[in-house]
Amino acid sequence: MLTPEATLARFREYMVGPTRFMNLLSCFELGIIDELREHPGATAAKLGEAVGAKPDAVEQLLQLLVKEEFLAYDPASGGYSLDALAAVAQADLKRATTYMKLIKFVALRQVFYLTESVRTGSLVGLKELYGFDGTLYEAVAEHQDLYDAFATLMDNVTARVDPWFFENVDIPAGSRVLDLAGNTGLGAIHACRLKPSEGLQVTTFDLPHKEEECLRNFREHGVAEQCSFIGGDVFDKVPEGFDVVLIKHFLDMFDRDDVFRILGGVHKSLEAGGQVAVMVPVYPEDIRDRGNYCVDFFPAFFLGGTMGQGGPQKVSTYRRWLEECGFRVTRTVTKDPAEMPPDVIPVQAILCAVKTA
Amino acid sequence: MLTPEATLARFREYMVGPTRFMNLLSCFELGIIDELREHPGATAAKLGEAVGAKPDAVEQLLQLLVKEEFLAYDPASGGYSLDALAAVAQADLKRATTYMKLIKFVALRQVFYLTESVRTGSLVGLKELYGFDGTLYEAVAEHQDLYDAFATLMDNVTARVDPWFFENVDIPAGSRVLDLAGNTGLGAIHACRLKPSEGLQVTTFDLPHKEEECLRNFREHGVAEQCSFIGGDVFDKVPEGFDVVLIKHFLDMFDRDDVFRILGGVHKSLEAGGQVAVMVPVYPEDIRDRGNYCVDFFPAFFLGGTMGQGGPQKVSTYRRWLEECGFRVTRTVTKDPAEMPPDVIPVQAILCAVKTA
Repeated sequence: MLTPEATLARFREYMVGPTRFMNLLSCFELGIIDELREHPGATAAKLGEAVGAKPDAVEQLLQLLVKEEFLAYDPASGGYSLDALAAVAQADLKRATTYMKLIKFVALRQVFYLTESVRTGSLVGLKELYGFDGTLYEAVAEHQDLYDAFATLMDNVTARVDPWFFENVDIPAGSRVLDLAGNTGLGAIHACRLKPSEGLQVTTFDLPHKEEECLRNFREHGVAEQCSFIGGDVFDKVPEGFDVVLIKHFLDMFDRDDVFRILGGVHKSLEAGGQVAVMVPVYPEDIRDRGNYCVDFFPAFFLGGTMGQGGPQKVSTYRRWLEECGFRVTRTVTKDPAEMPPDVIPVQAILCAVKTA
Repeated sequence: MLTPEATLARFREYMVGPTRFMNLLSCFELGIIDELREHPGATAAKLGEAVGAKPDAVEQLLQLLVKEEFLAYDPASGGYSLDALAAVAQADLKRATTYMKLIKFVALRQVFYLTESVRTGSLVGLKELYGFDGTLYEAVAEHQDLYDAFATLMDNVTARVDPWFFENVDIPAGSRVLDLAGNTGLGAIHACRLKPSEGLQVTTFDLPHKEEECLRNFREHGVAEQCSFIGGDVFDKVPEGFDVVLIKHFLDMFDRDDVFRILGGVHKSLEAGGQVAVMVPVYPEDIRDRGNYCVDFFPAFFLGGTMGQGGPQKVSTYRRWLEECGFRVTRTVTKDPAEMPPDVIPVQAILCAVKTA
């Protein structure tokens, strides 16, 4: 059992969370890290001149990076140089800072309003900061800064995770596949690429206003003959006539009652024997797993930053929900965290299921 | 040397900082912790009803507290109860949550603008969020939420730290003492109480608009005969005719050039042999000291939240600056972190010095 002293020490760890986060990101935003890569040994005075900041402020911000051994400081010369950061691949730094930008724009200020968001079930932060009533997914259409932070990351994630998804999902040759909430078609394009078969037909189902961009994407990727778009709302009616329904990165956006409405609609749309393949970020079965950071991130991110509701569940919970909605789960796979870059927070899982009756 | 993997894992630790912070604080703000103290074993449904939130959202927020073992969850009953939090004294929780409130109001949203604040040397966050041009110390006069978060904490800190300060500072009997930037007189009152002597006279020096409240405080605390107020600006001229000048919680608010202007003004105001006693939060001499959290907090807090400049220095730096300004340092004491509650971030130091010529 955690002692009171250890508990209070954990509180302190939490208290420095926001300042520590922006201190690090700000060093990248100011260009200090790039500057040090090109000019190792630069002093605070030189760095300040290069990035347009007062040397005193540069010195303050770099203390934390020296503490972390990300940078080294030489008291004799007053010069800084990359320490641990020198050995991190640029692609890794880019992925991590892209995610940090997402957190900055989508969550940092918004979670100030978390308590009110939870009380109202709405994104009070989006309302206060952007005057926007709705979810982040609607707000990105109107606010460029949110779009830049969010869409870029989502596309990167989809590109990284889809190959793993299609590796683990069985799509019989010649299937008619529905990509539920398939946005502007990237998932459908991946399905054609990664699960090619004679006669395969993939349909993206999403809100009607996505049709034009989706069809353009199909043409640009040369899959217009195999792919189509249906406009509609998953909460009204799921289109019928499909063998396999893909539900990627979607169920986690909703509370239990809405997840049941979605799965109920999919169940109704399928013939007996029809399949669903779900991909979602999940919490670990043992919530106390200290190596897993989903629980540290997603509740506040979903409730305060993106939806005002929702959040991941455990695989065992999604399995139970699928079964309560009339499916038999045939396969579950959880991404092995050891195969993920150590800065990546979401741990994805796949659940395949079949309609029993 | 930190491996690239360990470096990226540290980045992940930083990424969850903002969400983790507000997730924890929100559980207190919603009243969930109090509710569980009174009703151990309450389910998410019961808690949701009690605090006015959807059970799904309560369940999401409590995952983190279960992960941390702050709370326990019983899967059989679906009930939550205090785990480690049950053993933490209420006074300790109150101190920690007061500090968290301060961070929420003064820094959480403001540090979004840290990069711009550093580039401009001004508080872009205060400007964007409150339409306020200036420092936090000016803004608290106009914005109740900032005042509530900040002034309460500052008074608590002064009440806790002043006894330690006066224990370690020599004030000869019958001295004429100047409390530089003494705000509304609390430090002067403490000086009379904690260093009483025949003929002791203490003067609070601060901006003229503080005079009325300061004099009222002197009367209410029965020290009006020993205490007086001088209105003025430390950057213009420091009043003369004093034996001891106290500079508490002030030098850390400024960059080096302004610290030199302040110390230069004090030097000019004193006779040879006159004393100064400085109290400031300090960075550890070994910046890589992992048990010290000043570096994780203060740079972004000062640059982005309170001043747009400043921040603590090491004791050795303040000693050198005092000596460069014509003082001989006679004594330095740094607060032993082992004597501080484990959630407290600032580590204070005292430097006593005498004007050499």
